[in-house]
Amino acid sequence: MSEIILHNYYRSSTSYRVRIALEMKGIEYRYVPHHLRHGEHLEPAYLSVNPQGLVPALIWSDGTLLVQSLAIIEFLDEVAPNPPLLPQDAAGRARVRMLAQMIACDIHPVNNLRVLTSLRTVFNAGDQDVINWFRHWVNEGFQPLEKILYSSPETGKFCHGDTPGLADICLVAQVVNNARFKVDMSPYPTISRIHAACMELPAFVRAAPQNQIDAE
Amino acid sequence: MSEIILHNYYRSSTSYRVRIALEMKGIEYRYVPHHLRHGEHLEPAYLSVNPQGLVPALIWSDGTLLVQSLAIIEFLDEVAPNPPLLPQDAAGRARVRMLAQMIACDIHPVNNLRVLTSLRTVFNAGDQDVINWFRHWVNEGFQPLEKILYSSPETGKFCHGDTPGLADICLVAQVVNNARFKVDMSPYPTISRIHAACMELPAFVRAAPQNQIDAE
Repeated sequence: MSEIILHNYYRSSTSYRVRIALEMKGIEYRYVPHHLRHGEHLEPAYLSVNPQGLVPALIWSDGTLLVQSLAIIEFLDEVAPNPPLLPQDAAGRARVRMLAQMIACDIHPVNNLRVLTSLRTVFNAGDQDVINWFRHWVNEGFQPLEKILYSSPETGKFCHGDTPGLADICLVAQVVNNARFKVDMSPYPTISRIHAACMELPAFVRAAPQNQIDAE
Repeated sequence: MSEIILHNYYRSSTSYRVRIALEMKGIEYRYVPHHLRHGEHLEPAYLSVNPQGLVPALIWSDGTLLVQSLAIIEFLDEVAPNPPLLPQDAAGRARVRMLAQMIACDIHPVNNLRVLTSLRTVFNAGDQDVINWFRHWVNEGFQPLEKILYSSPETGKFCHGDTPGLADICLVAQVVNNARFKVDMSPYPTISRIHAACMELPAFVRAAPQNQIDAE
């Protein structure tokens, strides 16, 4: 067994998700930064490790390459089950995965760096166009998310009961990302309350973008 | 226990994923169509069922509302384990989820109907701009996917060994979607081979868009 390596970028929201999970599980890892805005993720040395050229990528202790943040987190939850990041019942697991994917499939992919860059290069989008685009898709996703979290009896201190898990990880990473685009969070009191509860936990703080070695 | 209902749109790629899983599991369900291009998914009656206003949404036999296609499919795999849609080992499960998410998180969300519509309304994108956008993101995702599937010893007749599963479901739904935008599939022989193998299976054929009651 050799060391666990996380290929990473401090400000990448999907990287942040994986860091939180590693911290919650108490798994030690080596942090290898790749500066996305400098294109370091597209250098041949990294593409030979991860052909997709995206971060995060986790090299497990047996050398296995893991990519895609939700797949990595479910892997961590299976090989290191404590504390669990998903409930024990199938319906609960479906609900937590649903909440996570409302962010990870419906909000984040439309707003990540490479898409925003394409809007600029293909459609001559300016700074305000990009900000409006980002806010639009956050609001499209956060409105139903807030409604579900507010109205569901299964919501507790965190997204699902009183234990933080996969959905909270995605929620926090998205809320932190939103701050860079000054998204008005006042329509989302439940999301904001859960974010605040998470930020009282050391794992979420240690994993936060500003606390990484490559933070600017 | 009452009937299982799938809120659906024949041409929605995420709806197609869930239909394949239901067919593979042999689960009977009632098909309720919502015409996305006519905005039927945004009518109050449907929003009261599913506040996110997206399809697919599955109403399970106990009344539980399930949304997000990958979450629904994992739920089905947990409550109806045969045939399994994920491998038994954690590394295999991570690989299949990775392949599925390379499509479900990196390709499809950037290319779905509401995003393409926004390109038209916000940036005055024309038909050719939309086609180019769609093809660009498919190629960005299919290049690494082809590379992984071609080079990995774990790839078999299907994405992971010789048993169809979650990754194949996402692959087929994306390839079918690509056809509408005439994506050149010649750079993707492995993806094409797996798609062809899936289309020899009755579940994939029965679930196909053209075989649904709302197909035009």
